[in-house]
Amino acid sequence: MKNIAVVLSGCGVFDGAEISESVLTLLAIDCQGAKYKCMAPNVMQHHVINHLTQQPVENVSRNVLEESARIARGDIIDIKDVDINNFDAAIFPGGFGAAKNLCDFAIKGTECAIQQDVAEFIKNMRTANKPQGFICIAPALIPQLFPKNIKLTIGNDKDTAENLNKMGAKHQEAKVSEIVVDKENKLVTTPAYMLANSISEANAGINLLVKEILALAK
Amino acid sequence: MKNIAVVLSGCGVFDGAEISESVLTLLAIDCQGAKYKCMAPNVMQHHVINHLTQQPVENVSRNVLEESARIARGDIIDIKDVDINNFDAAIFPGGFGAAKNLCDFAIKGTECAIQQDVAEFIKNMRTANKPQGFICIAPALIPQLFPKNIKLTIGNDKDTAENLNKMGAKHQEAKVSEIVVDKENKLVTTPAYMLANSISEANAGINLLVKEILALAK
Repeated sequence: MKNIAVVLSGCGVFDGAEISESVLTLLAIDCQGAKYKCMAPNVMQHHVINHLTQQPVENVSRNVLEESARIARGDIIDIKDVDINNFDAAIFPGGFGAAKNLCDFAIKGTECAIQQDVAEFIKNMRTANKPQGFICIAPALIPQLFPKNIKLTIGNDKDTAENLNKMGAKHQEAKVSEIVVDKENKLVTTPAYMLANSISEANAGINLLVKEILALAK
Repeated sequence: MKNIAVVLSGCGVFDGAEISESVLTLLAIDCQGAKYKCMAPNVMQHHVINHLTQQPVENVSRNVLEESARIARGDIIDIKDVDINNFDAAIFPGGFGAAKNLCDFAIKGTECAIQQDVAEFIKNMRTANKPQGFICIAPALIPQLFPKNIKLTIGNDKDTAENLNKMGAKHQEAKVSEIVVDKENKLVTTPAYMLANSISEANAGINLLVKEILALAK
């Protein structure tokens, strides 16, 4: 049975992992006959957003690994401790956490830096030729760690696509139900909530992404 | 298109709404052709649990409505402000939040009290003869607000079942893939993570529950 690493970035679309994308990823992996393990970096969140008002909360901090543990029902590990030999592939759900906690693309754009443990993990997976899937805004992690002109999508947002291209990627427009595959680099991306108007729309693309990741992991 | 109220109790299995059960409920409603609106009481959580260590966090408090907003991507309303005429049915996902924040069954057992706005909502829905579904431990909310000997399930946990029976219910054992229906009172229950060993197991029962709720709402 294939074992998929699911890399979370907190718990909540505005400051962490997008919750529906994360759960839909776990569901698709389970339904398609593979198993998964959740992981996250043990670092503080960039900030905490009140999801009711969408305003930052002052004087409060939360830990990415602890908040990600909410999605994982406590069954989660520090990405720094992961032995990639135990995994056949990795998937990164989206949410602003991917662009605020796993890297700082949401703040610094093309000048962004990738969190060290996360960068290490992605590089090691790539060196081992294991497929990796990135959902929603998580493709912001890709350009610095993969070869130039790598094919990816974040849907059709022009500014975001342009920034990814400036960093060296080759953005392709895609619909919410579609995936973009860079076969040579075993990389799969799908827009999910960059475009989704409903949870079933997000589910369609995520199901396809998981299917392709499992196929590439053969 | 039928409109389903989904009542959340925070964000995270140990102190709030079970995240997978909540997302799977939204997915099933959407996939089965209905729409939903999330809601929660605007009260403080009973406590905050670090989901990595499963220990309570001292000197920290979180608001049930604000944390539930994470699951709802910000699209959520205070249950106190709900006009039940806008809804055809209601579903309550589980997680300890249902038994710590919506009522205090997890702390006080058969002596539990139900949060006032939540009790008012359930009673109004019942008076209007609208179907209601309760997942996992959320059936703890039922006995005090429905007629004696109402049929329900929380799976097969003997102590919990006995406590619900002491409060007046008539517990029926059920598997994770099953639902228990009290047709007369338009009440549907399923064990989900009271029994589930995987997310797809929880998904099976929740899908059935949503299907039955939509059928009863006809």
